[in-house]
Amino acid sequence: MAEDRIWTAALVVIGDEILSGRTHDKNIAQIASWLQVQGIRLLEVRVVPDVEARIVEAVNALRTTHDYLFTTGGIGPTHDDITVDAVAAALGVDVVIHPEARASLEEYYAIRGGLNEARLRMARVPEGAGLIPNRMSGAPGIRIGNVFLMAGVPHITAQMLDALTGMLEGGAPLLTETIGCWVAESEVADLLREAEKAHPASQIGSYPFFREGRVGANFVVRSTDSEALLACVDGLCSALTAAGFEATPGGI
Amino acid sequence: MAEDRIWTAALVVIGDEILSGRTHDKNIAQIASWLQVQGIRLLEVRVVPDVEARIVEAVNALRTTHDYLFTTGGIGPTHDDITVDAVAAALGVDVVIHPEARASLEEYYAIRGGLNEARLRMARVPEGAGLIPNRMSGAPGIRIGNVFLMAGVPHITAQMLDALTGMLEGGAPLLTETIGCWVAESEVADLLREAEKAHPASQIGSYPFFREGRVGANFVVRSTDSEALLACVDGLCSALTAAGFEATPGGI
Repeated sequence: MAEDRIWTAALVVIGDEILSGRTHDKNIAQIASWLQVQGIRLLEVRVVPDVEARIVEAVNALRTTHDYLFTTGGIGPTHDDITVDAVAAALGVDVVIHPEARASLEEYYAIRGGLNEARLRMARVPEGAGLIPNRMSGAPGIRIGNVFLMAGVPHITAQMLDALTGMLEGGAPLLTETIGCWVAESEVADLLREAEKAHPASQIGSYPFFREGRVGANFVVRSTDSEALLACVDGLCSALTAAGFEATPGGI
Repeated sequence: MAEDRIWTAALVVIGDEILSGRTHDKNIAQIASWLQVQGIRLLEVRVVPDVEARIVEAVNALRTTHDYLFTTGGIGPTHDDITVDAVAAALGVDVVIHPEARASLEEYYAIRGGLNEARLRMARVPEGAGLIPNRMSGAPGIRIGNVFLMAGVPHITAQMLDALTGMLEGGAPLLTETIGCWVAESEVADLLREAEKAHPASQIGSYPFFREGRVGANFVVRSTDSEALLACVDGLCSALTAAGFEATPGGI
């Protein structure tokens, strides 16, 4: 059935600043959450340095194995912004100036010192690409085929995701419910395994934590079928209660 | 020269919870920063789902191309913790119970309900592996060859990193200095490129931000040579000042 088709995506995070530990990435979680709502599953992320050959390798490995490939970072005006060149090289196309991107940048910089050579770099796209609007600054994101080039700055990427909302074909969104419990996950491991086995259309993830000096865990139930999800959640809550633990719907 | 040898590492983050956007990863930045201090460069990160074949693929791709490979996640007691099995499969070795890990777990759980089958799972290691102590809980990290299996919970991984500090051979640490400036990076792109060209032993990264309604950027200079680093920082500061911008040492 067509509805059963699972749509997948991968993400390449381009940035020495992430690999050096200087910057904490926020785009993985942001793009992952957004994709969930579009009914698209993020199945792999690679973080690579600002080195063209490494970007090309990651882009080519992932664009052919997933429905969609996103990149973040490296589309600004400075010498270390090489994502457009790398993606063009990966696809075997030239880099050209996109007239609409140029016009958008001209307008944006009209009252901000004018369009210089560095700023014009942000109008460069792989030949054949379309633009992804960004209301935040004059510099658009770029779409070419199934590859989407987004900004590194998270709130600019948020604008670009906003512009793409509802535009990509996806499948049934993965639904999740969380059940929290003040219990060491190792005390209920059998119970979790049995609940998952009894509900094959759902998966259960166990995420332990230490808080306020106590151990606890959140159990995340995932399914594309809302009835199957509820049945699994009910089964797990009953099993926890029967074992003497209090199950907290929504998680702790 | 031996000092010029660059030591590299890769990281495989194992976790559906990261790919779903539910959990914001903290281990990438934590491990990246720690590696910097050990004189080891983190050159790639892959985030993969809790699927054995995908973990095997990533582990085998990265353990042979880097000096060290770290993994995070999937070494707990529940059914979704499959990292030990996946790494053993990748290396072509059996999974065995490590006697010291078993003893450590027996001691830890003696006053916490005893060692059950689920908890004993945390003593399973790929055959031939050593342990990485973790003072936080009874469950150790695991080292086999150049592969290091760390926890998913960031503060447990912090304990394991602590135990490994100074134990891994590394090279000259990458030194960094940051210069902040209230300027649009697109206004100084030429100046940055020229400063980098004039100081070939250093790299300059440009990280723009929007704060308090103003645009600014931090320029991060990186080098393994402290004199080269200072010369590049001085050159860049002079160039910024000459262009009429105030350079803030340490960044904004």
